[in-house]
Amino acid sequence: MERVPPLQSEAARAIVRDADHPRDSEVAVFGPDKPLTLDAGVSLSPFQIAYKTYGTLNAARSNAVLVCHALTGDQHVASQHPVTRKQGWWESLVGPGKPIDTDRYFVICPNVIGGCMGSTGPASTDPKTGKPWGLDLPVITIRDMVRAQAMLLDHLGIDSLFAAAGGSMGGMQVLQWAASFPQRVFAALPIAAATRHSAQNIAFHEVGRQAIMADPEWRGGRYLVDEANPRRGLAVARMGAHITYLSDAALHRKFGRKFQDRDNPTFSFDADFEVESYLRHQGISFVERFDANSYLYLTRAMDYFDLAADHNGVLSNAFKGTPTRFCVVSFTSDWLFPTSDSRAIVHALNAAGARVSFAEIETDKGHDAFLLDEPELFAIVRGFLEGAGKARGLPPAGKA
Amino acid sequence: MERVPPLQSEAARAIVRDADHPRDSEVAVFGPDKPLTLDAGVSLSPFQIAYKTYGTLNAARSNAVLVCHALTGDQHVASQHPVTRKQGWWESLVGPGKPIDTDRYFVICPNVIGGCMGSTGPASTDPKTGKPWGLDLPVITIRDMVRAQAMLLDHLGIDSLFAAAGGSMGGMQVLQWAASFPQRVFAALPIAAATRHSAQNIAFHEVGRQAIMADPEWRGGRYLVDEANPRRGLAVARMGAHITYLSDAALHRKFGRKFQDRDNPTFSFDADFEVESYLRHQGISFVERFDANSYLYLTRAMDYFDLAADHNGVLSNAFKGTPTRFCVVSFTSDWLFPTSDSRAIVHALNAAGARVSFAEIETDKGHDAFLLDEPELFAIVRGFLEGAGKARGLPPAGKA
Repeated sequence: MERVPPLQSEAARAIVRDADHPRDSEVAVFGPDKPLTLDAGVSLSPFQIAYKTYGTLNAARSNAVLVCHALTGDQHVASQHPVTRKQGWWESLVGPGKPIDTDRYFVICPNVIGGCMGSTGPASTDPKTGKPWGLDLPVITIRDMVRAQAMLLDHLGIDSLFAAAGGSMGGMQVLQWAASFPQRVFAALPIAAATRHSAQNIAFHEVGRQAIMADPEWRGGRYLVDEANPRRGLAVARMGAHITYLSDAALHRKFGRKFQDRDNPTFSFDADFEVESYLRHQGISFVERFDANSYLYLTRAMDYFDLAADHNGVLSNAFKGTPTRFCVVSFTSDWLFPTSDSRAIVHALNAAGARVSFAEIETDKGHDAFLLDEPELFAIVRGFLEGAGKARGLPPAGKA
Repeated sequence: MERVPPLQSEAARAIVRDADHPRDSEVAVFGPDKPLTLDAGVSLSPFQIAYKTYGTLNAARSNAVLVCHALTGDQHVASQHPVTRKQGWWESLVGPGKPIDTDRYFVICPNVIGGCMGSTGPASTDPKTGKPWGLDLPVITIRDMVRAQAMLLDHLGIDSLFAAAGGSMGGMQVLQWAASFPQRVFAALPIAAATRHSAQNIAFHEVGRQAIMADPEWRGGRYLVDEANPRRGLAVARMGAHITYLSDAALHRKFGRKFQDRDNPTFSFDADFEVESYLRHQGISFVERFDANSYLYLTRAMDYFDLAADHNGVLSNAFKGTPTRFCVVSFTSDWLFPTSDSRAIVHALNAAGARVSFAEIETDKGHDAFLLDEPELFAIVRGFLEGAGKARGLPPAGKA
């Protein structure tokens, strides 16, 4: 029976190392002259953003595509992950000749503020104490993440993005980009996203947070100082969340009620069913690459996200007079960010007079479909960016 | 911020006390001459069943109704709970003049084997060691629970039930009764149930079990011997499960994105949203009345339940030639035991040539609807039992 391995101070040290000195990444450091103003009402300074780029920025600086990652993603969108050694999380969509074509576009993928792969987050060293921030880091919002990304663009000398694209929490950032900086986003691709988190989604996140905070190794958030790590709590949080990323149909198709390596039940609490074994594996592999406090911060950011509330309760006000063109995508079996959420985005964009196309893709793969092999998604993204590229005056494919 | 209170050995002692000597309950003890043969391939002996009865058994012994409880229910179906002091969990449906009318029927509600309210379960004392069974208790199945209930009926001198009724895990027991003892069940009422647990449901259960087993206070299941108690893990398990009992729509209606006692976010990890506060309360109150190992055993029993697998993969074989009349009920917003599960029951019963009526009740209350104020459910149960009572030759209402 697979178990989360025993706690080791080495693991805690590795988390802090990656948080401060990310491998295989570029880092933009923003000093005391460039503080990040947070929604919590305080400033974060100094802070840093770790990011990856792919492709070449053209002379007109007009071909930049920002890819925003989801809750447990990071900047390694189209190249090998330095910790897991797995391929980039969106290599199906981003790369040479791919729908987000790095032969044509200059792709930037930053780790979000609050994350744990090199952008300032709770595992980063607090310069005032020389110790990991832990819960002393102010709570971060989606708008804060986007504000920091805008500062990264300034740092890179990029006035305006050709496109911003992302799924799930990444899609929330795309929507926030369009709302906060409409003049800086030519085209926006929010996939499997919503303009606010539902009560059910907040509830699932809260269970994950409670699982982490119930782990005695969490130590009030100060585990890194103690060289501890609430891995068991984090693994449980991940297992629960992972169910919500899949659909009942996908779980049934993949696992059904099949037993693991046997034909009959063991009459025990071992991982009897394949689906149990799969989930345990998901939990165990996640804790190797993710910081528990980051999980608290990023789920909180998603819970707080509510674009309508930021605009006097009227969602369309968030996009009033927007010049951005939108392509909104949802998946039929996604029950975490169901199609009704995407329709609400489309209705608000229509009310705001925006250019918007909408596609609901038929699939049984659930919310995770945005990360998986979905040829219809690839065709939609490719087509939308080609059309937007023409409007933007980018050279057609093969003429970059 | 509400927190699970610190562990106390008193809590562990209370669990053992209730498990061996249930308050406000009758207890049937089965000695060495009456072992319970378990699906796990071993015998349980001695064992006991705690139960409650309401109403009067008629002279013909033909008016007995067995009520089967769900995962976290118990025998206190229609009277005050001795621990929580709350009213019985199905008083809306069971009592004088109620649809399951205790003026007409003799209602028996046993605590299931594996439970923690007085029937033999992991918190009960193992007579061989004088200590709580813990994980040394063999794994229990739904069929084992029903076998034990049949022995209770023998003990009570009741040959045949007028009806068996229950929701969720209670509905599984009702279906198992009809499959195992067709001659002993005149009418069967499985509500919000299924003939097998889905991969998604197994997955949610596994997360709950892992939350319990990740709590260091669980101590390999031996916490009662150590006078410890994995309350935090059990609270997290309950919180996660509770989300699955409600619907997205019900959560939205009840809580939406409302903040708890304030208008704005706190930018902290307190229970900011009402839904968080509600869930934490659910977790905390649950651990006051439930044993963590029982939670492991009962979720396992549900996971293992698969009536078709017990009958060479053909579900209708489970009901072949059954004389029982069935009323199957589902709820539109129940995504844990969706209507498709109930339809599968109905199709199998049709294929087996059984008498069956089916009702899908329109509600946004999710799986929990079977426990709540659902007038349509009350009318259906009352009507079905009245019709069955006529067929059984019971005196009409008011003539008992």
